[in-house]
Amino acid sequence: MTTDALSPTGRSTIRRGKDRARTDRAELHALLDSAMLCHLGVVLDGVPLVLPTGYGRDGNTLYLHGSSGAASLRAAAGTEVCVSVTELDGIVYARSVFHFSVNYRSAVIHGRAVPVVGDEARLHGLRTLTEHLAPGSWDHARRPDKRELAATRVLALDLTEAAVKIRTGPPSDDEADLGTPGVWAGVLPLRRTWGEPEPCPLLPADAEAPAHVQSRTGPTA
Amino acid sequence: MTTDALSPTGRSTIRRGKDRARTDRAELHALLDSAMLCHLGVVLDGVPLVLPTGYGRDGNTLYLHGSSGAASLRAAAGTEVCVSVTELDGIVYARSVFHFSVNYRSAVIHGRAVPVVGDEARLHGLRTLTEHLAPGSWDHARRPDKRELAATRVLALDLTEAAVKIRTGPPSDDEADLGTPGVWAGVLPLRRTWGEPEPCPLLPADAEAPAHVQSRTGPTA
Repeated sequence: MTTDALSPTGRSTIRRGKDRARTDRAELHALLDSAMLCHLGVVLDGVPLVLPTGYGRDGNTLYLHGSSGAASLRAAAGTEVCVSVTELDGIVYARSVFHFSVNYRSAVIHGRAVPVVGDEARLHGLRTLTEHLAPGSWDHARRPDKRELAATRVLALDLTEAAVKIRTGPPSDDEADLGTPGVWAGVLPLRRTWGEPEPCPLLPADAEAPAHVQSRTGPTA
Repeated sequence: MTTDALSPTGRSTIRRGKDRARTDRAELHALLDSAMLCHLGVVLDGVPLVLPTGYGRDGNTLYLHGSSGAASLRAAAGTEVCVSVTELDGIVYARSVFHFSVNYRSAVIHGRAVPVVGDEARLHGLRTLTEHLAPGSWDHARRPDKRELAATRVLALDLTEAAVKIRTGPPSDDEADLGTPGVWAGVLPLRRTWGEPEPCPLLPADAEAPAHVQSRTGPTA
């Protein structure tokens, strides 16, 4: 095992669909860099709560943020959380309903969400989040002031304990179904693409989108 | 309040971003019908576990399924779960980092995942799931046989307790930032589109994709 391998523990060892499991940390990082939202799972009042939220990655650290008043982030701070990131790449049509599937890339990360303290470290986390969602924006837009920083909670999650699953390719049908005449099987791919920038109506009419926005065009990954 | 209104309880009442909260059950149904995957949150060994999975909706019931051996579905059966469905519609570029956001549609559903019993009811659940993921496929592909049905767990979740949030439109900047020269603000939309069908390599070379596959073209919603 190299230092770049994922190190699954009991709860992050993939049991179902082992052939889809990936063990290279680079595949985890590539998925996190390509996706835009995660689903954060916490336990609140004894029951699970799953909320979509933005994130950013720096090395082997995942940053999360939100309003300092949000109950979900308060529940997450200092506790065991689960962060799930999924990209859907296509629908897999099989010859039998049982083998219908989807092509996807999925990461499930377990760990303790640690509150980030200190203005410098918190600004670094927010910069990482901003540059993930909207590269080039940290140097373009106004940065957080003291009041805004105080209103924001930043959490860090170590990426050590993660499971990555990727499914690609055609359906895996039963041998006995392969010859059925008239039944189609294959993959219908899904692609995510950027649309044209829609300027804020309060901008001057001649304001052009800057290069860091204009360069986001075509497929997202 | 009409019978079509969502009925939030304490845990499903939206506190952050109240202006984004929707209360019409039709908006919940529209989002569920347009999205393709959900994130299912359960508590397993005392910590949250969030996994992506398919689903289907029939009226006010959400169906989930998976291998009868999957630990996550075993943990979900008969317990309180949280199902989160999110569609990302665009990145919102603001004049200040603090007001960066995303345009999205989100549903967070709380409830007890009830095991579906009886072959007829289970087949109905599987049909709902299949027709959600791949409309037209239940009548095209081979249906589950006794062995496949035994290997599949089907759960039903009542959609009564759900919170829906939708953000659309331009950034909400502070008044003081509106006049900053040279700072762009606006929305970069994201669109999901179907690609060309990729036939299974084991099909006869002249096999054409049927109408229920070919008709999925352009934007997904």
